[in-house]
Amino acid sequence: MRPVLALAAHELFPGDLDPVPAAICLEIIHTYSLIHDDLPAMDNSDLRRGAPSCHRAFDEATAILAGDALIPLAFEKLATEYADHPEIALSLINSLARASGSECLVGGQMEDLLAEGQKPDEAILAYVHQNKTAAMIEASLVMGFRLGKKGDDIPMLDLMKNAGRSLGLAFQAVDDLLDVTSSSAELGKDAGNDNRNKKMTWVNMLGETKARELAKSHTEDALNAVRQVGGETQFLLELIEAMLIRVN
Amino acid sequence: MRPVLALAAHELFPGDLDPVPAAICLEIIHTYSLIHDDLPAMDNSDLRRGAPSCHRAFDEATAILAGDALIPLAFEKLATEYADHPEIALSLINSLARASGSECLVGGQMEDLLAEGQKPDEAILAYVHQNKTAAMIEASLVMGFRLGKKGDDIPMLDLMKNAGRSLGLAFQAVDDLLDVTSSSAELGKDAGNDNRNKKMTWVNMLGETKARELAKSHTEDALNAVRQVGGETQFLLELIEAMLIRVN
Repeated sequence: MRPVLALAAHELFPGDLDPVPAAICLEIIHTYSLIHDDLPAMDNSDLRRGAPSCHRAFDEATAILAGDALIPLAFEKLATEYADHPEIALSLINSLARASGSECLVGGQMEDLLAEGQKPDEAILAYVHQNKTAAMIEASLVMGFRLGKKGDDIPMLDLMKNAGRSLGLAFQAVDDLLDVTSSSAELGKDAGNDNRNKKMTWVNMLGETKARELAKSHTEDALNAVRQVGGETQFLLELIEAMLIRVN
Repeated sequence: MRPVLALAAHELFPGDLDPVPAAICLEIIHTYSLIHDDLPAMDNSDLRRGAPSCHRAFDEATAILAGDALIPLAFEKLATEYADHPEIALSLINSLARASGSECLVGGQMEDLLAEGQKPDEAILAYVHQNKTAAMIEASLVMGFRLGKKGDDIPMLDLMKNAGRSLGLAFQAVDDLLDVTSSSAELGKDAGNDNRNKKMTWVNMLGETKARELAKSHTEDALNAVRQVGGETQFLLELIEAMLIRVN
């Protein structure tokens, strides 16, 4: 989903630069994070994308190393694929490194683990969702947009960041809902894992109705931000709307 | 040691660019690799740099995430610290990403694990040492040199690569020797771990005397390559010589 978001963001003001390599790099980082999150020391998930998770299909060492290999691959690919535009390449590397670093993806996952079994706390949950999930979705929109014709327009980039953050928060609220309303077969990953791991989720904290309202309101914010950016918005707006009603 | 090698390589033809940030990034990647290699699923080491290894001091999830956070930090730092020289920044990112990727650091570690308990095989052992150890030492010399005045001289860069590869192979042969001749207190890490993990090492395969000869001959190759590059070689030559007689 993250790569498609990058392509859709690029569609707003498409230019000569190919957004596909950047989209692939986003998926590379996302995939590493799933492989590591599934490990027994973290979420201990047996199923991923409808197949045994990496450490179940192989072993723990292989899963750790597969993740470790994917991270530098993403940065190598950005450095080589956009070598003819070194400043843009550096900006993409910076966006992806920050989104996947200690203050975002990894920090969010760490807080998520620390929060397991703790007293529900909205501030902690907002931090986790913002950093574990929304930061990479924000990076997807920003990186795709950065490769378009208006990629150096700072106010537009800020709007894309806002859109990405709101979409990320909506996405995670929907994820929390799906974990309780869907089956493992539908999700392609272990359903009910949040409760098993005593995760803090919006569903646990607010109930299903309010969690759904939250997802809706964040989705509206994302749509509005994209409309403000303008350009060929149709694909991205439809994608954001579809994410609210997704079933897996 | 890797950061100092980068600084020494930079000393050959020092220029205006500061090699310290690049040296720090090399140490960041090296540190992540130690944290992950020490994990129970890999080398299962309790002691590192004279203190409990990361997963012993904290827990496995924290150690996995600490490593995961360090990798993008190195690339973010290279992208920001050398932002005024985007082409050099990309070249550094490329060197570090390749050295730490699936074909070098991670590939070497994977082969190392697969080789545990297997029939001794010189080709496999050479592959492991070349990729698990020598590639990052090669990157240290190349990255330090790249930031100096002659950093875009391709024949010189090739010689620095050769020097790094030879030095890396010498370093690993000395490491194999120290694992059997030193104590954990001297090493600051678990001595005898290679035998416990049934690792393939030059000592196991060739015996101590021949392993020592191998270390010497690779060291000579490294010294010769550096002498051919020229410039202010004294610091780097002394460092390479010191690495042969190190005790930890």
